[in-house]
Amino acid sequence: MDKDDLLFIKKHFDFWDKLTARQEEMILSNIFPVKYEKGHTIHRGGNDCLGILLVKSGRLRTYVLSEEGKEATLFRLGRGEICVLSAACILDSITFDVYIDAELSSEVFVLAKNEFERLCKENVYVENFSYKVITSHFSDVMWAMEQMLFMRFEKRLAIFLIDQSSLDGTQYIKMTHESIANHLGSAREVVSRMLKYFESLGIVELSRGDIKIVDKNKLRSIAS
Amino acid sequence: MDKDDLLFIKKHFDFWDKLTARQEEMILSNIFPVKYEKGHTIHRGGNDCLGILLVKSGRLRTYVLSEEGKEATLFRLGRGEICVLSAACILDSITFDVYIDAELSSEVFVLAKNEFERLCKENVYVENFSYKVITSHFSDVMWAMEQMLFMRFEKRLAIFLIDQSSLDGTQYIKMTHESIANHLGSAREVVSRMLKYFESLGIVELSRGDIKIVDKNKLRSIAS
Repeated sequence: MDKDDLLFIKKHFDFWDKLTARQEEMILSNIFPVKYEKGHTIHRGGNDCLGILLVKSGRLRTYVLSEEGKEATLFRLGRGEICVLSAACILDSITFDVYIDAELSSEVFVLAKNEFERLCKENVYVENFSYKVITSHFSDVMWAMEQMLFMRFEKRLAIFLIDQSSLDGTQYIKMTHESIANHLGSAREVVSRMLKYFESLGIVELSRGDIKIVDKNKLRSIAS
Repeated sequence: MDKDDLLFIKKHFDFWDKLTARQEEMILSNIFPVKYEKGHTIHRGGNDCLGILLVKSGRLRTYVLSEEGKEATLFRLGRGEICVLSAACILDSITFDVYIDAELSSEVFVLAKNEFERLCKENVYVENFSYKVITSHFSDVMWAMEQMLFMRFEKRLAIFLIDQSSLDGTQYIKMTHESIANHLGSAREVVSRMLKYFESLGIVELSRGDIKIVDKNKLRSIAS
């Protein structure tokens, strides 16, 4: 393993300083970079139990699939992000199945489930890290769920951005998230999160101090 | 605190044998039973941060609330179950807000957030326990979400139960969950979970060896 990869793994497995020398060795001799083509399904629900994933490059998409083949995206994972749901079989508290695809061509460090399971059993810090990662994904899923269930705020923000851009006669909206939140009677955090979501859909580009509308048609379709 | 309460707390806080004497003492002198009337809202989203809850009796309902007042139930908690989302402020990985009501008159042990926070910081087993409880609720939420999104299986099971009951000319369905699953091309676990859900809605009563339909009208409304 080259030095950069080693540093990358140590940085993102933030239980590293709680490992014994033997446990470090176990990880380093059992973690491998795997390349996935764009569109490849890495993990297929309850029958799979690959291990823990650490994204080196590219992007993964986690979703649920209905019996009829309907999908719902839960969250995406980019560089430096970790997925434990691909090792759900070894964590009793997880009783649901997800699918994971490479949304872009991706390189992923995979630590196989047997080694990961042994680590979780031996070292409470590893187990705790895993549950913490899952809890942060729980937050992502709650957000996606609220969008699906309640939907309204997304629409209100889209309408606001369109109106503001027409008013100013420009595709740049020079307002803070705070002041947009005030306009909409919402919270800054909610506005920021939704704008980030719009950015991930390629609708806006965010930079310090302004929001650039790059796909007005998509924004209109959300607003209507 | 009486002896039964003490045993109850020790049993459900399953990190108990990892506590120091001082930490045990800290819990026992800071945990209190609180009575809530039916309908009382115990926890109101992000502004509240009560602490960790252990249900002694009754039933709590956890839900999300939209800006427009629309609700979606996430999961329910009965005797012996624990809620950590009511102390979300101290766990960084939780960035969503829930509401918690007493669905029935309930008695709940509350360990206030300051003591709980100190314990989580001092003792990784307590922190790990908290994240594990949250992960099991993540599983509940995923299940609720899939019902809301995909819905179909519920309907198929309802239709099957109605048909079977008409065929046999009785409100008792004497089949194993396994064989129902086979009939529906599904898994035993999925059938069991859905039947438990029907039971919580007062539609069926489950006992060893049979399923009794107690509210055929509700079942019909699901089927249609």
